[in-house]
Amino acid sequence: MPPTDPSGATATAAEDAKAPHGVSRRGLLGLIGAGAAGLAVGGGTGAAIGANAASASSQRNAVYPFHGAHQAGITTPVQDRLHFASFDLADSLTRDDLVQLLKDWTAAAAKMTAGQPVGETGAVDGPEVAPPEDTGEALDLPAAGLTITFGFGPTLFQTTDGRDRFGLASRRPAALAVLPRFSGDNLSPEISGGDIAIQACADDPQVAVHAIRNLSRIAFGRASIRWSQLGFGRTSSTSTSQLTARNLMGFKDGTANIKAEDPKVVDAQVWADGDPSWMAGGSYLVTRKIRMIIETWDRAQLQEQERVIGRNKGAGAPLSGGAEFTAPDFSATGATGKPLIDKAAHVRLAHPDQNKGTQLLRRGYNYVDGNDQLGRLDAGLFFISYQRDPQQFIDIQRSLATDALKEYIRHVGSAVFAVPPGAKAGGFIGQQLFA
Amino acid sequence: MPPTDPSGATATAAEDAKAPHGVSRRGLLGLIGAGAAGLAVGGGTGAAIGANAASASSQRNAVYPFHGAHQAGITTPVQDRLHFASFDLADSLTRDDLVQLLKDWTAAAAKMTAGQPVGETGAVDGPEVAPPEDTGEALDLPAAGLTITFGFGPTLFQTTDGRDRFGLASRRPAALAVLPRFSGDNLSPEISGGDIAIQACADDPQVAVHAIRNLSRIAFGRASIRWSQLGFGRTSSTSTSQLTARNLMGFKDGTANIKAEDPKVVDAQVWADGDPSWMAGGSYLVTRKIRMIIETWDRAQLQEQERVIGRNKGAGAPLSGGAEFTAPDFSATGATGKPLIDKAAHVRLAHPDQNKGTQLLRRGYNYVDGNDQLGRLDAGLFFISYQRDPQQFIDIQRSLATDALKEYIRHVGSAVFAVPPGAKAGGFIGQQLFA
Repeated sequence: MPPTDPSGATATAAEDAKAPHGVSRRGLLGLIGAGAAGLAVGGGTGAAIGANAASASSQRNAVYPFHGAHQAGITTPVQDRLHFASFDLADSLTRDDLVQLLKDWTAAAAKMTAGQPVGETGAVDGPEVAPPEDTGEALDLPAAGLTITFGFGPTLFQTTDGRDRFGLASRRPAALAVLPRFSGDNLSPEISGGDIAIQACADDPQVAVHAIRNLSRIAFGRASIRWSQLGFGRTSSTSTSQLTARNLMGFKDGTANIKAEDPKVVDAQVWADGDPSWMAGGSYLVTRKIRMIIETWDRAQLQEQERVIGRNKGAGAPLSGGAEFTAPDFSATGATGKPLIDKAAHVRLAHPDQNKGTQLLRRGYNYVDGNDQLGRLDAGLFFISYQRDPQQFIDIQRSLATDALKEYIRHVGSAVFAVPPGAKAGGFIGQQLFA
Repeated sequence: MPPTDPSGATATAAEDAKAPHGVSRRGLLGLIGAGAAGLAVGGGTGAAIGANAASASSQRNAVYPFHGAHQAGITTPVQDRLHFASFDLADSLTRDDLVQLLKDWTAAAAKMTAGQPVGETGAVDGPEVAPPEDTGEALDLPAAGLTITFGFGPTLFQTTDGRDRFGLASRRPAALAVLPRFSGDNLSPEISGGDIAIQACADDPQVAVHAIRNLSRIAFGRASIRWSQLGFGRTSSTSTSQLTARNLMGFKDGTANIKAEDPKVVDAQVWADGDPSWMAGGSYLVTRKIRMIIETWDRAQLQEQERVIGRNKGAGAPLSGGAEFTAPDFSATGATGKPLIDKAAHVRLAHPDQNKGTQLLRRGYNYVDGNDQLGRLDAGLFFISYQRDPQQFIDIQRSLATDALKEYIRHVGSAVFAVPPGAKAGGFIGQQLFA
């Protein structure tokens, strides 16, 4: 597996100049095509232009190629906004139907990630007597760094009542299984699992929403949304060009995340090996909807908050000293002989040093789903991680059994997906699985 | 009422250069203070710098003054993101408690709209043994054009079981009453009404969420959120410097909206008169949560969609011809003698020409609240309008009784609020009401 990521940014000065003045999605296409040919980043790690913003983005004009060895949306610099949907397939769907759906989704995803409307004729130029092929709400918007990433859930490979749903039971990766129950889990099945996941990330939420909406529409009668999640703010960086962002606990999150600029780590921790062969160049995706007990957290003393996390709140420096990117010293003790980083601190228990070097590539988002009936914000972190094997997540989550943070969070949703490699031009997502 | 809006943008070149590279909210303060003093737009109509984007914003560094004759967030150029919350006050709250809450909210809103953390000591520099005064998730972010706008619901003035809740019954504006029932309404009480509304708009969603969260936290034990709404994309412009945005039907929305650059219209349609006197310089706010029947709409033919709206989908031009900003010609007929703009078209029924010249200043947002149990997007328009009298909304909504659009939408939430004038420096929001 080459340590390069095909999802290089290809924003052009022409787009920067034009898009904010309202060149249409359709009109923009010519510019993007020309720019991509001239300026495509061949062997880079997906560093986008102008990525140096903590939350809202200056990357509206980034375009990431859909086709490549890996799917985009994994090591791609984390975009600001998320719309994630988990689909269940219709009971009546055949294997051939499933292949056709994946072909249809691939075609639409390739168009939308290039900033084009879906369909042959587009939303506006189509015949008056047919529904528009594209729903239209992104017509005036650039690609906004849109990536669309597909994953297959364990249930896709399931044999039910002696029936192998899609003839895929024998091709199920051994690594792909429903996650075990973890201490403190409080999962709702209706916001967990699913046959196929689609992660749409973009620097404009309307572009991400447009993608999920049109993919859902294309799937009408074949697949329907089981659960979905909007995320308004990224909490991780996957590129050294990005500032660390803050989660809704007010702390910097993902300081020690895997960065695309470290291809050895990406290779060792993120990309699946060739067993099964159809997953070579793929990855495994874990999502966890983690509700924060916001009101309790907000009434905790600053020293308690910092003890729980193991970093200070302002700069994000480890409590053992230094600055944000200083390595934590877990053996350092204070005047009283107590460790400066608490034994139960989140940063300690999640750290690679405490987990045999295991790391995750995190891509989580802050969410607010309105409020509950008690008038509290229904808010937290939609955790997303990519790893070469879900066991990495399982091991770290088990290490977190004594995490002091558990008092302030509840895991309410969970899912795992096998993310196949990228599609080749002319091919479709998951093609290797059906070969 | 002078035809000027005090909420002028005061972004500075220094911020533009600094903020994206992570100058902290605290550190940024000095820059903003200096910039505001030197560059404040005295008598402008709130035109922001770099406002020429259809959806995602280039206005992250705009700062709108909190104090002034009118509240900001009305004629202010519509920011990209919304967090709106409607609060109910605790039964035990006294009039003095309510005044104190409004003072506390005013102080916090003034801080946050200037890009500062709430509280005296800030989130990070405060004592270790107290909860941080600010929750911290916006620490690294600029003000992002944040405006915070307060409104009072009819129930604030209510007399229940012979008890005048806050001694305000006699000061209730005659214009402030629960909206009448409209044809086709399907309202849920739990997402309607409320004692006090807070509208937080910003060009970074994390900044808007941070504002509502901290105001909710400050109100703990005194007021709790009754309902709330996140909006991810503006659907209106209130400035000629902004491009028209699209709603989730894929059509341009708000083309004929009131623009701040037309102070005569703003004065005639938006600002309340002096009856009662405490409302002079205020306005009335109507919110309607309008769910779209997305799947049905998406299967409608293009010509049906265009007939329903009365404009074409691409450019947004009226079906009577011309370009987006051409005035619709409602008398124009086609070859068959039928009107080019259908009798039931939304643009016809909502147009001032059909409503004795009445206009609304719209500030609505696209929303997606996940999906329903049938796998359909729970999505639509969170409609917001400001007017000098809610009767304007009532009249237009009654005109829309035969609107062809009604087949594709459901009004599910509704609220009306009296929006007091802006606070003076040293004063508090609603002070005139308690004078």
